[in-house]
Amino acid sequence: MNDKLGQLWGIGVGPGDPELITVKALHCLQRCPVVAFPAGRHGRPGMAQTIVAPWLQPEQVQLPLWFPYVQDATTLETAWQAAATQVSEYLTQGQDVVFATEGDASFYSTFTYLAQAVQQQQPWAQIQTVPGVCSPLAAAAALGQPLTVQHQRLTILPVMHTLEALETALDQAEVVVLMKVAAVYAQVWQILQRRELLAQSRVVTHISGADQRIYDNLDNHPQLSLPYFSLLIVHCG
Amino acid sequence: MNDKLGQLWGIGVGPGDPELITVKALHCLQRCPVVAFPAGRHGRPGMAQTIVAPWLQPEQVQLPLWFPYVQDATTLETAWQAAATQVSEYLTQGQDVVFATEGDASFYSTFTYLAQAVQQQQPWAQIQTVPGVCSPLAAAAALGQPLTVQHQRLTILPVMHTLEALETALDQAEVVVLMKVAAVYAQVWQILQRRELLAQSRVVTHISGADQRIYDNLDNHPQLSLPYFSLLIVHCG
Repeated sequence: MNDKLGQLWGIGVGPGDPELITVKALHCLQRCPVVAFPAGRHGRPGMAQTIVAPWLQPEQVQLPLWFPYVQDATTLETAWQAAATQVSEYLTQGQDVVFATEGDASFYSTFTYLAQAVQQQQPWAQIQTVPGVCSPLAAAAALGQPLTVQHQRLTILPVMHTLEALETALDQAEVVVLMKVAAVYAQVWQILQRRELLAQSRVVTHISGADQRIYDNLDNHPQLSLPYFSLLIVHCG
Repeated sequence: MNDKLGQLWGIGVGPGDPELITVKALHCLQRCPVVAFPAGRHGRPGMAQTIVAPWLQPEQVQLPLWFPYVQDATTLETAWQAAATQVSEYLTQGQDVVFATEGDASFYSTFTYLAQAVQQQQPWAQIQTVPGVCSPLAAAAALGQPLTVQHQRLTILPVMHTLEALETALDQAEVVVLMKVAAVYAQVWQILQRRELLAQSRVVTHISGADQRIYDNLDNHPQLSLPYFSLLIVHCG
């Protein structure tokens, strides 16, 4: 045991390409003896784990943390507290822990909940965040088109709450990004068709990864079977 | 002269801290013989130039490009074409050129206009973008608070068009970011006070730089003298 608490770092490791990690996050990743990340599903490694894998040393402890994909608040809270307990064990031993999260660590990230639960359990723990490249910006780079220029307003919808929320966003902003569009794609397509916005809309999947795919003739795609990390950009202004 | 055209790279170099460049952008920066960036003002180096300075080698050509801070379309177009001509000279000699831009290269970036003008002048030139960390995400990391969680909608206003546009954004989204808030801060403060949102609003200036500053008790600051790169985050949801 060490009297000095370890520190928790949350680092955004970017959208998929391991080289889209920042130098700062990479230094942090390579300095910490314990590397935590969301556990994968179905026996496969998770996304953040895959991104950091090329950068890790054999002597680093790898700590997969389980976060359920559910809406139930009690189940989620129980999982966050359990993950925080695992992290706290290392912190109380004086060991620094880095938590790797895909994209950015402040942008719809599991790190938020882990950090809050660790702070509850270890009120004196120092917690710091290193920002990362988020998927909408990486998607724009992949498309070779600006996401936003000049006075354009940008609205990002993490999921489609209601069709009305999408309609409002399309009315109010010049650029709209829908994250995780897979489950609602067919409904979104109907709205874009009615508004004659299909020609200005693009879908990017597995952004910046080896299996990245771009769909830019959406007129031909009223239905698409998309992976979970799919994103749609509409230039409606 | 070389028959093979050089390639143009646009790289986002992050919000200020040189270590917030990605590994991919850094490799690109170090590989290209010519490094372009927006020229500074008043004899001072520009922001992107300052960020990349620690990473450059003496043998690399540094190419400051002049972009005026004006609204007039003809003046802007003339400047973009002149900058593109300077870049094209190296491309036609077969030399790769990297253009460094603060934040991300697809997000309200000068690179958009430079790339369009180069593509007009050199239709066969290959142009690629490497994404970067944008200032809203770096500001959230500096604050140690999530920018967005769960189902929160995010609206980013690059400048305040009208007070009405801000009111609409505050009505429709749970999180609103105002970029370049300096010129309109006093008016924005009035709106936030009326809506009782001052306690959920924060200003960050010189994000991630050595002179970064956070203002989080805005109740006490109806007026603030802020630098150009100041950003305000409101959690209104």
